[in-house]
Amino acid sequence: MPKIVTLPGDGIGPEVTAAAVQVLREVAPDVTIEEHLIGGVAYDTHGDPFPQPTREALKDADAVLLGTVGGAQDSAWNLLPRHLRPESGLLALRKALGCYANLRPVRVQPGLEHLSPLKAELARGVDILIVRELLGGVYFDGDRKIDGDTAYNTMRYTTPEVERVAKVAFWAAEQRRGRVTSVDKANVLEVSELWRRDVTALRDRDYRGIHLNHEYVDSVAMLIVSDPSRYDVIVTENLFGDILSDLAAVIPGSLGLMPSASLGDGAGLFEPIHGSAPDIAGKGVANPAAAIMSAGMLLRHGLKRPDAANQIDRAVALALRAQPTRDLGGAADTRTFTRAVLSALESS
Amino acid sequence: MPKIVTLPGDGIGPEVTAAAVQVLREVAPDVTIEEHLIGGVAYDTHGDPFPQPTREALKDADAVLLGTVGGAQDSAWNLLPRHLRPESGLLALRKALGCYANLRPVRVQPGLEHLSPLKAELARGVDILIVRELLGGVYFDGDRKIDGDTAYNTMRYTTPEVERVAKVAFWAAEQRRGRVTSVDKANVLEVSELWRRDVTALRDRDYRGIHLNHEYVDSVAMLIVSDPSRYDVIVTENLFGDILSDLAAVIPGSLGLMPSASLGDGAGLFEPIHGSAPDIAGKGVANPAAAIMSAGMLLRHGLKRPDAANQIDRAVALALRAQPTRDLGGAADTRTFTRAVLSALESS
Ligand SMILES: CC(C)[C@H](C(=O)O)[C@@H](O)C(=O)O
Ligand SMILES: CC(C)[C@H](C(=O)O)[C@@H](O)C(=O)O
Repeated sequence: MPKIVTLPGDGIGPEVTAAAVQVLREVAPDVTIEEHLIGGVAYDTHGDPFPQPTREALKDADAVLLGTVGGAQDSAWNLLPRHLRPESGLLALRKALGCYANLRPVRVQPGLEHLSPLKAELARGVDILIVRELLGGVYFDGDRKIDGDTAYNTMRYTTPEVERVAKVAFWAAEQRRGRVTSVDKANVLEVSELWRRDVTALRDRDYRGIHLNHEYVDSVAMLIVSDPSRYDVIVTENLFGDILSDLAAVIPGSLGLMPSASLGDGAGLFEPIHGSAPDIAGKGVANPAAAIMSAGMLLRHGLKRPDAANQIDRAVALALRAQPTRDLGGAADTRTFTRAVLSALESS
Repeated sequence: MPKIVTLPGDGIGPEVTAAAVQVLREVAPDVTIEEHLIGGVAYDTHGDPFPQPTREALKDADAVLLGTVGGAQDSAWNLLPRHLRPESGLLALRKALGCYANLRPVRVQPGLEHLSPLKAELARGVDILIVRELLGGVYFDGDRKIDGDTAYNTMRYTTPEVERVAKVAFWAAEQRRGRVTSVDKANVLEVSELWRRDVTALRDRDYRGIHLNHEYVDSVAMLIVSDPSRYDVIVTENLFGDILSDLAAVIPGSLGLMPSASLGDGAGLFEPIHGSAPDIAGKGVANPAAAIMSAGMLLRHGLKRPDAANQIDRAVALALRAQPTRDLGGAADTRTFTRAVLSALESS
C-alpha cells in the first residue's frame, strides 16, 4: 500500500490540504495517509521548521503532499534566525527529498479564459510547462553572508546539476509539443553561460528530436504574458524559475489554479504554488483547486496512476465552472468547491 | 551651450536615435549634439565596444542619449570574449558615468488602453515608476567565474549602494503619490535582508512622510500585471529591476513605449528599454517612441527643462493616437511617426 505523507503547514495550508486529502481518498482509497508538521507550526511545536519526526516519516514515503509554509510579513517567525524560519523548513525538505526538478504547468481550461487578466484571445489554449531547477543556484549555495554593511549570495551551478534538470525538460517535451525554451541571462552572467552551453550539449547529444531555443529572462518575463502561446516547455534555474512561475500564474488568472510537482532522486513533493495567505487563513474561503490539482500530479508522477490523475483534472475543471471560488470572482468557499469536485468525481 | 553625446549603437539604434535627435533639435535648438560609437559597431571599428574616443567625448557631456546595443542571438559578436561583446560596452558606459539609479516609468496614456494585452480596465490609468539599481549586484561584482564544469556569479550589495538608490526612489515618491514598494527576496537571500534593512532605516530616518512596504520579487512579478494600480514607485536591485521593468512593458502594450533615464554622479544616460531588434533593423519601421520619450527624460532630468519635456510627452501621445506604429497594430513607419510628433510639436 503506497504511503503518502501530508505536511499541511501554515496559514491556509491545513484547509487546502484537507480538501486535497478528501479527493485523494475518493480516487485512491487504498493509500495510507500520514500527517506531519512543517514550517511555522513545526517550529512552534518542536523548535525546528523541519523536525526530526517529519524527517523520519519521509523515509518510507512514496510521495509528499505539502500545503503552504510561512506567516504574514510582520509574523514573529520572520524575526527568527534564518534557519529557523518556516521557509527554511520548506527548503530543507526539498533538499532532503533530493527534488531537483520542479514542474509547474500553466494551463488555461477551455471556457475559463475570462478569469485571466489577459484578453481572452491571448489566454485561450495556453499550455506551458515550466521546469524550474530547485536545489541549486542562489538558494542553497553556502557561500553567503550578511555582515555589517555588506552582504552577498552566490549563484552557482555545475554541469551535472544543469544536465539532470534539463533531462527532465527534454523528457517532458517529448511527451508534449517537442519544444524547449531555456531561459538564462547569458549576456551578463557566467553562470548562465555554463547553463546555456550544457543544455545545448545535452540536446545535441541525446535529444536531437527536440527543438531548443534560448531566451533571456527579462525578455521571457515580457513575452510569457504578452504572447504565452509561443511556449511549450520552459527550463530555467532556481531564482528565474521562482519569478517566472509566479508570473505565469497570471495567465490562468489566479495562483489558486497553479499546482506543482517536484521530482528527483526519491519521493516526489507536490504542492500548490500559492502562499499561506494569512489574511484569509482559518476562514474556510481559500481556493483548494491548486492543492487538489497537486494531489492529481502526485497520482500521475508520484504513484504512476495517470487515470486517477486525469479524473481529478476533469473534476476540477467542472467544479471551476460550476462553483468558482472568491479569488476567481465567484462565491464558493473551500467546502462548496471541494464538494463540487467530489460530486463531479462520483458522476464520472 | 549644453552638449549632448548620442550613441546610436547597433540594430535599430541608429534609426530611433535619428528620430529622437530630430525632435531634440526642434524643442532645444541651442544644444550641441555629438555622435559617437558604442557596442558592436564600436567593436567593429575600434576593437572595443566602449572605445577611447567615446570615453573622451563624455568628459564634457551634459547628457548622453543611447540607442541600443547588441546583435542577433547568432551574431558573431556573441562569440567574442565577454568583455568585447556589445553588452559589455553598455555596462562599461553605465559604470563610467556612475549612473546608479535607472528610472523606468510605466504609463498608460488615456485612450491607449486598447494597446495593452491586459483587459482595458486593468491597464487604465497605470502610472508606475520603477527605480532599478544599476551598478551593483550580480552585474558588476568581480567575484565571478566559468571554469570547466562549474560557474558562479556573486550578488553583492553594500549599505551605501542601497542608500543612494533608495534616496532617488523616496525623492521621486515625494513628487508623486508618496508610496514606495521595495522589492527583494528576503525570505531566501542575505543580500535582500541587507537591502530591506537599509531601505527601512533610511525611510525611518529621512523620509517619514513616505509610505514604504516590502514585497517579494516573485509576488511582484505576478501583481504588477494582474493589479498594476497598486504600485506608485518600485525600487529594487539590478537583476530584479531588469526583469520587472521589461515585464512592466507589457502593461502599456509594447517595449516601444518604454523610455528610461539613468542618473548618478555625473551626466545622465537616456535610452529606450527595447533591444536592437536585428530582424527589423535598417528597414525604417522601428517604433521611435521610446527613444523620443528618452530624449524627453533627457530634457527633464539631464538639462532641467521640464517645459520642453512636457511638450515632447504631449506630442508623442498625440502621434501614438494619430499614427500608431506596427508594434502597436498600426501602419506607421519610423518616418511617418516622427513626422507626426514633429507636427504635433509645431501646432502646440
Ligand atoms: C517560500 C519560498 C522559499 C519559495 C521559493 O522561493 O522557492 C516559494 O516562493 C516558491 O516558489 O515555492
Ligand atoms: C543588454 C543588457 C545588458 C541590459 C541589462 O540587462 O541591463 C538590458 O537588458 C537592459 O535592461 O538595459
